Order: sequence, then C-alpha cells, then structure tokens
Amino acid sequence: MGEFDFIDWIRSQQAAGGLVVTAAGDDLAVLKWPTDELLLVGVDQVLDGVHFDSQVHSPREIGRKVMNRNLSDCAAMACLPAAAVATVALPAGIGVQYAKELYLGLREAADPFGCVIVGGDTASWAGKLAVTVSILGRSGGIEPVRRSGATAGEGIYVTGALGGSILGRHMNFSPRVELARRLAPLGISAMIDISDGLSRDLRHICEASGVGAIILAEKVPIHGDARTLANRDGKPALEHALHDGEDHELLFCSRAQGLRQLGAIRIGETVAERGVWIQGERNEKGEKGVKEELRPLGWEHSL
Amino acid sequence: MGEFDFIDWIRSQQAAGGLVVTAAGDDLAVLKWPTDELLLVGVDQVLDGVHFDSQVHSPREIGRKVMNRNLSDCAAMACLPAAAVATVALPAGIGVQYAKELYLGLREAADPFGCVIVGGDTASWAGKLAVTVSILGRSGGIEPVRRSGATAGEGIYVTGALGGSILGRHMNFSPRVELARRLAPLGISAMIDISDGLSRDLRHICEASGVGAIILAEKVPIHGDARTLANRDGKPALEHALHDGEDHELLFCSRAQGLRQLGAIRIGETVAERGVWIQGERNEKGEKGVKEELRPLGWEHSL
Repeated sequence: MGEFDFIDWIRSQQAAGGLVVTAAGDDLAVLKWPTDELLLVGVDQVLDGVHFDSQVHSPREIGRKVMNRNLSDCAAMACLPAAAVATVALPAGIGVQYAKELYLGLREAADPFGCVIVGGDTASWAGKLAVTVSILGRSGGIEPVRRSGATAGEGIYVTGALGGSILGRHMNFSPRVELARRLAPLGISAMIDISDGLSRDLRHICEASGVGAIILAEKVPIHGDARTLANRDGKPALEHALHDGEDHELLFCSRAQGLRQLGAIRIGETVAERGVWIQGERNEKGEKGVKEELRPLGWEHSL
Repeated sequence: MGEFDFIDWIRSQQAAGGLVVTAAGDDLAVLKWPTDELLLVGVDQVLDGVHFDSQVHSPREIGRKVMNRNLSDCAAMACLPAAAVATVALPAGIGVQYAKELYLGLREAADPFGCVIVGGDTASWAGKLAVTVSILGRSGGIEPVRRSGATAGEGIYVTGALGGSILGRHMNFSPRVELARRLAPLGISAMIDISDGLSRDLRHICEASGVGAIILAEKVPIHGDARTLANRDGKPALEHALHDGEDHELLFCSRAQGLRQLGAIRIGETVAERGVWIQGERNEKGEKGVKEELRPLGWEHSL
C-alpha cells in the first residue's frame, strides 16, 4: 500500500459538516469560520526518543498524545478545539497498519471534543518517527485566557496533582478543556497548561504578566506517581511535583470565589515583586518555613 | 542558548496587527478571522534525505522550501496566504544559529505574501532534521478552486515549463499565488499545483472531478532542466516533464478565453471517458501520434 491508498483510506474516515465545507482530499481543506468567534491556532510535535519511545508505546498511544497536547493548549486558552491537521514522518517500511493506528489514535483523542481532522501530510524516510498536529480553536463566547493578565494579590491554582508523569500519565492524560470552559467565566486572569513543569510554567505566566509568585510547599498537590518515583530515586516527591512537567493540568491565577468547588487547588499567590518563590512547610510550632527562589528546573530543549 | 531563549528571539521578530490579535508567545496565537472569508488550512513537511539534503542545502533554503510548498497549496486553491505555524525537529547540537536561519528562510518565503508566522514548536532530538508548516489561507473574495470541478471538453493548462526540478528548482520555486488570483476570476473549474508530477497530479484532478484527460505530447512545455537531465540519463526529456514533480506550477482546467495572455499553456483537454492519455507528436505527414495511457509515475511514498 502506498501513500495515496493511505490518503484514500483517511478520506473515507472523514466528512464535511459543521464548519467543514471541504475536508481532506484537496490541496487545502475549506472551513467556514463561525462569525464573531476568534480563531486560535498552534502546533505541537512529538518525536521518538523525546516525547515517546516507539519501542514501548503503541502508535495509538503516540497519536493520542500529540493530539492531546494540542487539546491541552486549547484548554489553557479556554477555547473549544475545532479542527486539526497532522503530519507523520514514518520510518521506511513501518507499514500502513502502523500509520492507520497513529491516525486512529489522533481520532480517539479528538473525537470526544468534536475536533475534526481536516488534512495532513504523510511521508516515509530513513529517520525516526515524528508526528505533528496543528490545531484550530474557537473562542465560543469566552474571551481567550492569555498568560499575560495576572496582577498582584491573586490566588494561584492548579487543577490536579502533579509529578511523576513519566511513569505513564504523560502518554495518557485528559485535556482539561471542559474544566477550563467552566472556570474561565468565573474570572481567570492568566492560564497555562503544565507541560514544562510547574516551576517553569509559573515563570512563563509571571514573565508575561509582569508579576511575581509565592508558592506554598504544603499546598502543592503531589501525585502518587511522584511519590513512587521519589521512593525509587531518593529525590523528594515535592521536587517531582514542581519540576517534572507533562502533567497537563491547568495552572492559573484568579481572584474569583467558588474555584475549589470546581476542583481547583490553591497553591499560592501572585505578588508585585518580580520573581518566583516557594515557601517551605510550617514547622511543628506553626512557624513559617523558609522562602526560597523556585528555580525553573523543568524541561528545556538545548539547541 | 536554550529553547526558551530561541522562543524569545522569535517573539522579538513578531508583532500583532492585521488579523493577528495575539502572536506567538502564548499557548496558542489568537486571530480575528475576516468576516465572510472562508478559511483554508493545510500542512506540509520536509524531511532530510527526502525533500532536501542537509549536507547540501542551507537552512535558509530548507526553511524557504517548506513555506513555499504551503504557499503553493494556497495558489492551487486560488486563496491568499494569511498565517502559518511551524515545527522544527533539530538534530541535537546543531546550534541556535541554524535554527534562526531556518526561521529566516520561512520568513523570506512568507513575507512577500503578507503571510505571518504566528506560532511554532521547536525540539531537539537524536534524529534528523524535519520541518513542518501549517498554513491558513483566506478566500479574499474568490471562491476556492477545488480539484473536483472539471467537466468534459475543457482545456487543460499549466503555468510553466516542467521537469528536472531536482537540479535545483525544487528548492527555489515561486509559488504562483498572484497568477492563480488573476486566473481564477476568468473561470477555472479545477486546479492543483504540480508536486507529485504532471502525470499523477492530472490523475488527482480527473479522479476528483470524474472526467478523463488527453494530453498532447507536443504541447507539454519542457524545462531546460529536463533536457539537461535527459542528456545525462538518456531518458526522453518529455518523460522528465511528465513525471518528475516538484515543479510547483499550476495545473488547471478551464473553458475561458484569455488564459494564454496570462502565461497559461494549453496542453490538452478533458474528456468524458475516464482515464488519462497522452497523444504522441504528429509525424512528418501531419498524422496524429499514438494515443497511450499516461501512467502515474510521479512520486509516491511507499508506506
């Protein structure tokens, strides 16, 4: 089976409808964008040996991950995923069934959000597996939440326990799109999804907003995976929660009430002084712990 | 220099304005889509050893090529390039200057068309160089031209000489966006850009439209590069023009007059009977040449 048979198969999986006027199968897909809705656009890639291990993870899982990363970007802006295009660079000879499984992984992630795959590009090469997804989101009546709107004196929140995602959650997480859509109308000044690690992503918000932040160590929700990892490597579980990344929980700032009822966990507050600090746990006498700089130790590609 | 310094550098190159409300630097870029304009979207990738050779081609050339491939898709639909997002998978240790050159290559191609790069994703890996661009086009008052609108009895046209692009033109071609915008209002029923080769891309139009086609061998414009290549490999230059691909000239069907004045070259006509044929050159007595099936020998990725 060649590229064009595969493209025919993909086409058979797709249909026009909704905002799609002409789906995949032409040089470009044609969409009718809903009037008065902002268009949000971004792209993420996953690479063998960096974001997944093709010896360990199935193509279905790999497809899901790259789509979910993009859906999580939509969550971070509180927008609705609408459409996506994908590229796959396949190791030569890997076979069409593998390519189909990748596509079905993309669909498994996208379908529950009504996000339609409207185009793509497939090629084979003497290289390793690389998959990209570009996503289009629509504002759907909610102003997109940027990273840049935080002001001093707001609460800092996360939407779930952090750390140790490498044990498996990084391949299989649930983008917080619906939660973001419920939180945003309550009043959120800045938001991001935790991909690079809490310590680094919080810094992204602070730098974009021109504020500082103090995190309370005792408030950071630590995932069981972080504890498992800590038992193995001897590092404190809190360190894993602060720096591991790929949690894909939301991190946001707000003055609103009622956030806890929606599952948000307050972990600190924004301050006027620029910088990011962590305040240690109180001792037995109830005295405040030491306040230290929270350095960004999360993931960064070295170029 | 790490990923985030590079991202900061890219951000310094960008600005909001036009349809861009918030450019790169957030989880997603935010655009205000022009009312009453259709949104066209697609994606193309270039891979080391397939679409370019990193030992031969500069990062500037590689960046230009992947953007130009996408701009050529816009030309094929007669739409206006509006915005793009890109991914780069960089071989570890290649250095930030290389990444900047790639980005500047993307910009060199995009800027003349007013196409703004609004986001992207950079990663390094123990793999080869892979670059993708996803493009958003806008209809801008012209109904997008699909592959599917051809009917029997129309002229088949190309916009330039074909063949031998491997000698260098495949890295350095001019997307026919402006020409497509001038041609489309005259009445074009189906269009594609020649990337896989005339023989294969004409078949794409025929299959999408439900028609057949007869090409006249003597009318196919043969590029000097095809003749050069023919002298080297002993294959007829016509074969190169028919099958090589990556010409990125437009191939379209039309009943309109006045196309020749715009530089379009008539190479045959559509017919009711399904199939794609080539009619050989007339002999010295003026007798028609043999009509044979034109098999699709252009590029196809084997999966």
